[in-house]
Formats: sequence, structure tokens, C-alpha cells
Amino acid sequence: MAGLVNRQWLLARRPRGMVGAEDFEWAEEPVPDLSEGEVLVRNLYLSCDPTQRGWIARDTYLPAVKVGEVMRSLAAGQVVRSRGSRFVPGQLVQGMLGWQDYAVVTPQSGSSLVPLLPGVPIEASLSVLGMNGLTAYFGLLEIGRPQQGETVVVSAAAGATGSAAGQIALIKGCRVIGIAGGAEKCRYLTELGFHAAIDYKTEDVKARLRQTCPRGIDIYFDNVGGEILDAALAHLAMRGRIVLCGAIARYNDEVLAPGPSNYGQLVVQRGRMEGFIVLDYYGRAAEALPVLHGWMKEGRLKYRADVVHGLENAPAALARLFKGENQGKQLVKIADASQV
Amino acid sequence: MAGLVNRQWLLARRPRGMVGAEDFEWAEEPVPDLSEGEVLVRNLYLSCDPTQRGWIARDTYLPAVKVGEVMRSLAAGQVVRSRGSRFVPGQLVQGMLGWQDYAVVTPQSGSSLVPLLPGVPIEASLSVLGMNGLTAYFGLLEIGRPQQGETVVVSAAAGATGSAAGQIALIKGCRVIGIAGGAEKCRYLTELGFHAAIDYKTEDVKARLRQTCPRGIDIYFDNVGGEILDAALAHLAMRGRIVLCGAIARYNDEVLAPGPSNYGQLVVQRGRMEGFIVLDYYGRAAEALPVLHGWMKEGRLKYRADVVHGLENAPAALARLFKGENQGKQLVKIADASQV
Repeated sequence: MAGLVNRQWLLARRPRGMVGAEDFEWAEEPVPDLSEGEVLVRNLYLSCDPTQRGWIARDTYLPAVKVGEVMRSLAAGQVVRSRGSRFVPGQLVQGMLGWQDYAVVTPQSGSSLVPLLPGVPIEASLSVLGMNGLTAYFGLLEIGRPQQGETVVVSAAAGATGSAAGQIALIKGCRVIGIAGGAEKCRYLTELGFHAAIDYKTEDVKARLRQTCPRGIDIYFDNVGGEILDAALAHLAMRGRIVLCGAIARYNDEVLAPGPSNYGQLVVQRGRMEGFIVLDYYGRAAEALPVLHGWMKEGRLKYRADVVHGLENAPAALARLFKGENQGKQLVKIADASQV
Repeated sequence: MAGLVNRQWLLARRPRGMVGAEDFEWAEEPVPDLSEGEVLVRNLYLSCDPTQRGWIARDTYLPAVKVGEVMRSLAAGQVVRSRGSRFVPGQLVQGMLGWQDYAVVTPQSGSSLVPLLPGVPIEASLSVLGMNGLTAYFGLLEIGRPQQGETVVVSAAAGATGSAAGQIALIKGCRVIGIAGGAEKCRYLTELGFHAAIDYKTEDVKARLRQTCPRGIDIYFDNVGGEILDAALAHLAMRGRIVLCGAIARYNDEVLAPGPSNYGQLVVQRGRMEGFIVLDYYGRAAEALPVLHGWMKEGRLKYRADVVHGLENAPAALARLFKGENQGKQLVKIADASQV
């Protein structure tokens, strides 16, 4: 596309320890012309997700981003041009569009481009009605299998996924305890209707779990790993389930930290600890999204977005997740949608 | 019972580190007269099981044995006298009879006394057709859920539970790899038809797992915990299952050792790690025992017993388990059955 410059963040190296701007390299290149079937998307919002730290470390459930490649990221954008694809200019979409101003989506990858739900804020489409909402929905309901009256504990509970998981547990009639860092996040959990909030920065998590979960933990929805996972295992109820969603406390470790000492509680309590990847459930998004959207419209499923402005700040925005600085879904806004 | 002396091992203290004779105290007392409904059993064989180390450490799935109480143990014995119970003198039975010559079984605990299968060696009744066989059967089939052609790895594979689990996996059409300590145990696994045996004492377990499980591990039946669990996690196949049966490598730790660093593989591989306690399945023993017995008679389910003689050697026999000295089921023979 004559004249358009595509600013990009490329992966400069595999990070060691805490990820930061020095792990990425700024580049600018002309936006290429489209081939048949391709779509050009102007990125508007980048989604910051802890799992991105894994994508640049090693092959996991996706091949690792290679050094020199555009940083992989979910993002929402607007179709600028389409050459024989099913997308039309002006349309709002989301997909794995990367840390850049413009993404050229090829027919091969075209199926990963999804139209945004009409009438929904982009911030919601990238959080509670996007990957985070689907993660919470399928992780809690399919792996955790909550029963009414059960006790559900969620870590990183003020985050985009955790707050959705906790609210869905509330909707399912569970007693819900959230763990988060800091008074502001804990206040937010109380506003959402959580039965208790534990501030891991100032409180004794083990003691507070004993206090707030007198019958033990039926489901622990784990986003953090580390000591909090150990504390939850120590207080697992009979036939308790641990939904392994992530382990943000571990992603920046240079050496793999030890696992949970108390995993033996899974034997004593006949417990189950199970991991999942939300991508496996994308084929069922059409089943979950209307339900999530309905709850949102009823005011039972709320979200917050924490927006950093400017593509140049994408690495810093990602780092905020690991410092616990974000209040809700971390996004990077890089452009406004055009009127069509 | 006038004149009969009951020799007993009482718990002298909570062990610190490796369990040994110094943790028990020898006692002798007269065998009491029976009250209505009670049964007097002459113990013949004591069953040595790693889980006994947990019973004397703390409350787990059973209340801890109290200091001063007779050491808890599964055992087989012969009914000597019965006062209005359903058992008859001469009958062979098993139950939680303890480290002693004679056990008085009260009506309250009477339901835990189970007649031995007729025509079956006592050694088999206490191993492959007893707790170990049931543990292997329900743990592998209900928690592991093997499919034909899957790869199953078993640790402590030459032990009473492990060898049964591996053979049941073979019967179910799986590819089975056993991990054991020493050439003699590994040779035994090969004799049983295991597809490969890994000697953890002399071989690099991680490298050998990669070599022997080219498509990853579908089921890991874990009896040991520790580094081998970590190695198995590192090599888990997609949707792999880890059956947590026990963790003999950890039972004598004074301080709880770290858990498996690689538990995050459960997320990447959508894996499940689940614990169970065989007692939960005792109500279904009547469903499993005829199947196990049938396989035994067909020669597809073999067992070995490693018999130490004399009640006085019970503590030393238990310690053999944790040193890996036993070849097959560790038993203590304390008397011969009388002819009735």
C-alpha cells in the first residue's frame, strides 16, 4: 500500500527474567500490497496477556515466536482493504494480529480472523467477550465443574480472566473468594459480589483461606502458581479440583521454580489438578459468547480495562501484568476506528 | 483367653526421617476374653505397605496411629474364637489387624474383616488379590482410563502395586514401560512382558523415557513422586493422565520436599493429575476381585512375595520398602495356619 508505514515491535532476543523493552526491537517497513485473498487490518487495540511471556520463551502449545519476527499478540482492528476475502473494509475484527500498526492476514490464517460482536465495546471484545471470558467460562465450567453451594477460590481474581471466572462462579451459586494484590483490587472484588477478598501482599493467605473457606476449597481456579497454589492445595476439600489456567508468578523465572510441595494432598483428598488451553474451545465460542454477553447485559458479568496508549508502549504494557500494576484487562490502544 | 500372650509392636513416637525399630516399642499382654459379638484372630502374615509411614506421621485419609497404640497394619489371620459373630474358628480372614499375634475384632470394626478367597495363597490375598491389586485395578482403570495402544509408564514397577498396574495395562493392550531400582527388578519386569524397563539407579530416566516413549506418556502411574514424577511430566503426551497413587520417595522427608517443577506441563499438554485412595473402592471389590483372580489363573497377572519371618522383625521389614530392598510384596510371616 503506497505510502503507508507499518511500525512493528520485533522480538530481539529470548528474554531472561522479567520481560522488558530491551527484549524487543522497533522496526518500520512499508505496508505491502495485498495478494489475492488477503486482508489488510489496521490494528486498534493490542491485548496484553501473561501467556505472551511463554510464547517468546520456548515452544509451548504454540511454536515460539522466532527472534526477528513481529511479536505475537491478540489484537482488535479494522479492515482497511480486502482482496477477494469475506471481510469488508470498515469491519471490526480480532485475531492474532501482532504488535504492529497493520497486519496482512493471508487466506491460510484467515480463519483466525473473527468479526467483533456488533454493539459491544472493543475493550469487552478483547476481554470478557474474548479470550479471557472464554478461558474463564470453559475452564471453570468444563474443568472445574462447579456445583451450587461449593466454595470456589480464584487467584489473580481482579484480572481479566480471574474476575470473569469468579463472577461466573457467583452466577452458578458458589461461594467465591478472590485473591489479589492490593487494597484497590480487593475492593473491586467486593464490589463484584465476591464473598471475600484476600490481599496476598499484606495478608497471610493460608490463614485467610482457612478462615474464609471453613469447609475447604472445592475449586481453585489458578492463574498464578507459586506459593498460593501450595496454600490452596493445603486447604483442598475432599474431591477438590484445581483448574490450572496459568502461573503468572512463574513465567519470568530463569530457572524453573519448584512445584507445589503440597501436591500430595491430591492423593489424601482424592483431588484433581487439570490444565487446559482455551484455544481448544474456540470451536465452541458460538455456544459461550451469547451466554457471556447475556450475563454482561444483565450486569452480572462486569469487566474493567486498563488502557495504555501508543504502540511504542506495548513492551511496557506487557511488563505491567507481571508487576501486577494493571487494574483489569491490560490493553494498548494504538489507533481509533475510522468512520466508514 | 487364659494363658495366651499377645506380643505387640506399639508406636513409641512419631518417626523423624527414615522409620526404624526405634520408633516402636515391644509389649506383651494377656489375650483378653471376648465380649459378645467379638472375634479373636491369630495373625499369620502382616502386610507391609508404604502408606503405613503416613499413618504414623499425621492424620491423612485415616486418623494417625496414636503413640502407645498397636501399629496399624493390614494382615491375614485365622479365626481362633468367635462369640456370636458370623465368623467361625479356623476361617482365614484379612483386615486391619495390626502388628501383633492376636487381634480382637469388635462388632463395630467387624465389617472390615474379610474372608480370604478359598484356594488362593495367603501371599496373593495380601497382594495381587488384596489391597495392591485393587489399588492397581481402580487406579489404572478409573483414574488413568487407558485406551488400547496408549503408552503407560509405571514407577516402583516391580513392587506389589506397580507390577499389578503394569500387567493390567498390558492386558488392556497398552505399551508399558516400568521404572524400578536395580537390574534384578528390571529383569523381572521384562519377564512380566513389560515393553521396556528403566533402572533409575543406573540410567538417565529422562533420556530413557524419551527413548522408550517416542509419542510421549499417555498415563503415568506414580508410586514414587520426586524426580521421576518431574521427568514423567516433562514427557507427558497431549491429554496425558498422571495417576497419583503414592510418593514413596517423599514419605520419610522431615521437611516437605518441593513438588514437581514441571507441573506446568499439565497446562501445555492439557493434562490431568489425580489422586485416589483405594479404600473408596472397597465397596466395589466384589466387582474387581473375580476379574483379577481370573487374570491370575490365566497366568497374565503374576506376583512375587518377599517374606520376612518373625513378628520381632516387622519394623525392619517395613523399612525395607523405603530402601527398595523388597522384591515384590513385602510380608512378615508370624505363624502358620492351624489345621481345622
